Amino acid sequence: MTLNSIKVEDSSGNTNDGTEASSSSSSSQPNGVHKVCLPPHRTTFQKLRHRLSEIFFPDDPLHKFKNQTALRKFVLGLQFFFPVFEWGPKYNLMLLRSDIIAGITIASLAIPQGISYAKLANLPPIIGLYSSFVPPLIYSVLGSSRHLAVGPVSIASLVMGTMLSQAVTYSKEPTLYLQLAFTSTLIAGCLQAAMGFFRLGFIIDFLSKATLLGFMAGAAVIVSLQQLKGLLGIVHFTNEMAIIPVLTSVFENRNEWMWQTVVMGGCFLIFLLSARQISARNPKLFWVSAAAPLVSVILSTVIVYLIKNETHVIPTIGHLPKGINPPSVNKLHFGGPYMALALRVGIITGILALTEGIAVGRTFAAMENYQVDGNKEMTAIGLMNIVGSCASCFVTTGSFSRSAVSYNAGGKSVVSNIIMAATVLITLLFLMPLFQYTPNVILAAIIITAVIGLIDYQGAFRLWKVDKLDCIACLSSFFGVLFISVPVGLLIAVGISVFKILLHVTRPNTNALGYISSTRSFQSLSRYTTAVRIPSFLIIAVEAPFYFANSTYLHERTLRWIREEEDRIKANQEPPIKCVIIDMTAVTAIDTSGIDTICELRRILEKRSLKLVLANPVGNVMEKLFNSNALEAFGLDGLYLTVSEAVDDISSSWKPEKGPAQPLTI
Amino acid sequence: MTLNSIKVEDSSGNTNDGTEASSSSSSSQPNGVHKVCLPPHRTTFQKLRHRLSEIFFPDDPLHKFKNQTALRKFVLGLQFFFPVFEWGPKYNLMLLRSDIIAGITIASLAIPQGISYAKLANLPPIIGLYSSFVPPLIYSVLGSSRHLAVGPVSIASLVMGTMLSQAVTYSKEPTLYLQLAFTSTLIAGCLQAAMGFFRLGFIIDFLSKATLLGFMAGAAVIVSLQQLKGLLGIVHFTNEMAIIPVLTSVFENRNEWMWQTVVMGGCFLIFLLSARQISARNPKLFWVSAAAPLVSVILSTVIVYLIKNETHVIPTIGHLPKGINPPSVNKLHFGGPYMALALRVGIITGILALTEGIAVGRTFAAMENYQVDGNKEMTAIGLMNIVGSCASCFVTTGSFSRSAVSYNAGGKSVVSNIIMAATVLITLLFLMPLFQYTPNVILAAIIITAVIGLIDYQGAFRLWKVDKLDCIACLSSFFGVLFISVPVGLLIAVGISVFKILLHVTRPNTNALGYISSTRSFQSLSRYTTAVRIPSFLIIAVEAPFYFANSTYLHERTLRWIREEEDRIKANQEPPIKCVIIDMTAVTAIDTSGIDTICELRRILEKRSLKLVLANPVGNVMEKLFNSNALEAFGLDGLYLTVSEAVDDISSSWKPEKGPAQPLTI
Repeated sequence: MTLNSIKVEDSSGNTNDGTEASSSSSSSQPNGVHKVCLPPHRTTFQKLRHRLSEIFFPDDPLHKFKNQTALRKFVLGLQFFFPVFEWGPKYNLMLLRSDIIAGITIASLAIPQGISYAKLANLPPIIGLYSSFVPPLIYSVLGSSRHLAVGPVSIASLVMGTMLSQAVTYSKEPTLYLQLAFTSTLIAGCLQAAMGFFRLGFIIDFLSKATLLGFMAGAAVIVSLQQLKGLLGIVHFTNEMAIIPVLTSVFENRNEWMWQTVVMGGCFLIFLLSARQISARNPKLFWVSAAAPLVSVILSTVIVYLIKNETHVIPTIGHLPKGINPPSVNKLHFGGPYMALALRVGIITGILALTEGIAVGRTFAAMENYQVDGNKEMTAIGLMNIVGSCASCFVTTGSFSRSAVSYNAGGKSVVSNIIMAATVLITLLFLMPLFQYTPNVILAAIIITAVIGLIDYQGAFRLWKVDKLDCIACLSSFFGVLFISVPVGLLIAVGISVFKILLHVTRPNTNALGYISSTRSFQSLSRYTTAVRIPSFLIIAVEAPFYFANSTYLHERTLRWIREEEDRIKANQEPPIKCVIIDMTAVTAIDTSGIDTICELRRILEKRSLKLVLANPVGNVMEKLFNSNALEAFGLDGLYLTVSEAVDDISSSWKPEKGPAQPLTI
Repeated sequence: MTLNSIKVEDSSGNTNDGTEASSSSSSSQPNGVHKVCLPPHRTTFQKLRHRLSEIFFPDDPLHKFKNQTALRKFVLGLQFFFPVFEWGPKYNLMLLRSDIIAGITIASLAIPQGISYAKLANLPPIIGLYSSFVPPLIYSVLGSSRHLAVGPVSIASLVMGTMLSQAVTYSKEPTLYLQLAFTSTLIAGCLQAAMGFFRLGFIIDFLSKATLLGFMAGAAVIVSLQQLKGLLGIVHFTNEMAIIPVLTSVFENRNEWMWQTVVMGGCFLIFLLSARQISARNPKLFWVSAAAPLVSVILSTVIVYLIKNETHVIPTIGHLPKGINPPSVNKLHFGGPYMALALRVGIITGILALTEGIAVGRTFAAMENYQVDGNKEMTAIGLMNIVGSCASCFVTTGSFSRSAVSYNAGGKSVVSNIIMAATVLITLLFLMPLFQYTPNVILAAIIITAVIGLIDYQGAFRLWKVDKLDCIACLSSFFGVLFISVPVGLLIAVGISVFKILLHVTRPNTNALGYISSTRSFQSLSRYTTAVRIPSFLIIAVEAPFYFANSTYLHERTLRWIREEEDRIKANQEPPIKCVIIDMTAVTAIDTSGIDTICELRRILEKRSLKLVLANPVGNVMEKLFNSNALEAFGLDGLYLTVSEAVDDISSSWKPEKGPAQPLTI
């Protein structure tokens, strides 16, 4: 490559055909050496637009609208915003039959679950049923997933209950508590809808699977322990959610333990766990675990009714009001001393609910081979919560357990949500008095069974096997949630995940490469025993972007590679190194510090009569090297398209008796 | 590759020759297809040790000790801890002569600079001289850089002055202010020494050059404006350091402006700036700018003496005590309401001083082609500040301006520091009364001249040309320092730098590759017009580690690549895609989310009758794929050493009439 050619291209800059704006090294060696091209020239604005579209529209959501008529575009637009118009026309009776079965099956799980999760959030049980009625209806119009069954979920309920109860006690200030719950649901909904609208879905990607694994397990342990309150019949119990106060509370109130609830709870817990186990062993018997909660509720209610629980030894749910969701707009309350709390609860439950909803939606979409638009799903879930907060619902999202049951029961579309809502409606209108005798202990047993399934110790073990740092992130989110609090646990885990990325960049792998003649490729010497060193060359592959965070390290590490290679050569009496090639294939980006380091390395090596050349820089690295004028320093022969060309060309430029050109012609 | 072979290797696991623990795909296609090897097997402990040694000992500091006798090891150890033993024996009279000239030259700069920088830190001027005496002596024993000239520096002085003055005013509470200054110097020293001892030097790498560029410029603007106090003769001036209160202060006190100081300051400012300009134009005349401060001080002192400044119209430094550094151990004060402030000041000045010292040391080491051990330098600078804090010195480090002057004056070793210290000693003992008439305005002029040189607008422009985000980091640190405060400005800039790394990982580049027959390599289709698509194949290169933060993106982006390619194929009526190859060369790491995504992609594509194969995974990615059993899912033919082998092997397995094998034999 000649400096002149670079300059000429630079001044004739704005040619559209970017490959023309390349610098050629063919002038020095016409045969066998190829140009390293610059990527096509783009203006700053074009680059910014590209970058922003990759950040916010990676899935190119409008690709369906290309080359369509105006009418078709309108129909597509309607389908885009209301997926019901997409699947509605194709809907038929066969699908309806499947959906009715699935819907009723989910409802049989959803009713006891709704009541239990409302208790988890320290809310009155009826709120759980309200939340299983309105949100599924909204979702069935807006949602794009066919298998997502909507309702309250354990994690979001748990977090809401935890965080609100630390500040306000429901039994003491029920109105304030309800206000806060609905307000934070509204905030969660607004956040979710806004994230969807502004296409910020990628933020939830930062909650890695490892983090969530630990978080879920920690939350599950805490919640199970919390349920000891119901299971043991304890009346005075802590509001805190860390493990130590909970256990203290359990054992300090030993005098409140009641054998009746313990026996009843124990029996039903065993029944529920066995049902789960049966379904897990034999997936065809999925309905056993799906029906078990409803069966338990009915059974226990009948038992309590029969034993005439007049002394109220076994606490029951008690009277529940009949009728559908009352409006709760008047309970939405902004400002005041608890606004910050509501905001915090809204943000955390909103993000957690979103994470679960999107993950569940994606899982089933992948299984049935259709696409779910993450950002559209967010908007749907968000709007569903906004409407929900005005209709006495708390945070809802796509629930994993319900969706799995629906999928197993043969649910084919979002209509199953409508059927479920209808069943819940019937319950709300006519069956509420039946719950009067339902004992609290049965809800505790249902919750324990549900959350214990969230503890995936095998998953944690797999993490340990594959990636130690992932496992540490998982463990710290587990212990953070267990011993400190939910937000702190999550924050630590996200911090560790980000630290992992930074560590990878700060201390990247470097490899010395050798030539494998049979594959005509250069590979790591430590990994391939068949790879051979090329005399007089040291080929180093850097496996990371060349950034400020690692430029010092890569500087020192390169010099150390050279020092170690020289020591080895001295010991083996081989010919000395004359050229260092840095294989830039995996250097996916560079910044100004990185460019300075490369130029400095070249200067240092030049003083030692060592040549430094770069092989195969990727597009944007090449562009930055060009823009920074670093290529001028590298000049005539510092840049090659491939390592083998660099080796061939450089060795052929040395004196024939010294050059190892013969065995290396590739 | 066969599943059996994997399992066999796995069970016979602990062989040391890791290349044996590889999986072979040669069983299916004996000719032309090569094994993808696992990296050599290492235990978790070995990996941890390797990782830690790369984090903390990237330069392998003990490599000199290998294969040496015990006596030699002792001598090397002594030299390791006290570099004076390394260069001492080789020192000769020729070197001494150079060092004496350099030392006296630095002293002529160091005396006015020391006084000015002490004023910058709002400390009594004499502290600046003390700080130019003890620390250089300590450094000359411990330091490993030959050209580093030690003393107070503008940035650290400025930050100390800024932060302390916001809480305490020197003129009101001199003892408390001195206590805080020395205590924070001690803290800075301890931090520096600890960072060196625990080899945490890489932390300062996170202050990228771009960040420092903006920071220095911002600090320089603020300091220059602050000097308007001295230049205009204003008595009442703000202690705050943001630009708005400073400018308000300047213009609100217009009645205090004095023409005498304005004229005198203006003249000397012009003189100093011209001297700087002369030296910059002609590097041989370096001594002009080096001597200018001392000349100004002498001239202005003589002028003030001659005009009999009895009414004190022109404020002067006034009486300075004779004698060497008094001990200040009694002034070190821990606890009390200002402890948090001292801690904060110590940490920030410590890190900034370290950054400058290390950067300057590295710069001159690179110019003279010797190595500076960053961590050892840190310990030396730290110990120098610890001792300094007990001997009435404030934060010192290697100064860029002094080192440059020393280097230009021919300084050859750290002895120049000793000569400088001796000159300062003489000044302290005998020449202090001479400074009585030195006007403050001259110090303001010297400071302005010094800090204006820190504003590198060309550097900022270069950043913009090369890397927009680097430039934004630079600008935000500039404006953050200017409008908010030094720590906030730095924090924003570090945040942006880290965000840049995360953005690169979250939204990595992906490229579709084509084949360039003359180079026998696969390159980006958008970059190389000579690259041709291979019919029935879609080859995607991913340019980033495959992490939780981008697994969703890469999932969707891959599907979009396929969709776009299928649209193109439909339009051009080409044969449909049958195989997607992901070139993993630049995927430098993978985590469990990434592995899950790849497996899911393979499942999704399989349902569409598309084959997904991976080419050339790097060592640790291969290892993780293997550990997670993902390779089993990929099975017999999902993994190739190179893209060309994948293309050859897969196309030859298709029916001959369809296979594009003929033109692709590479």
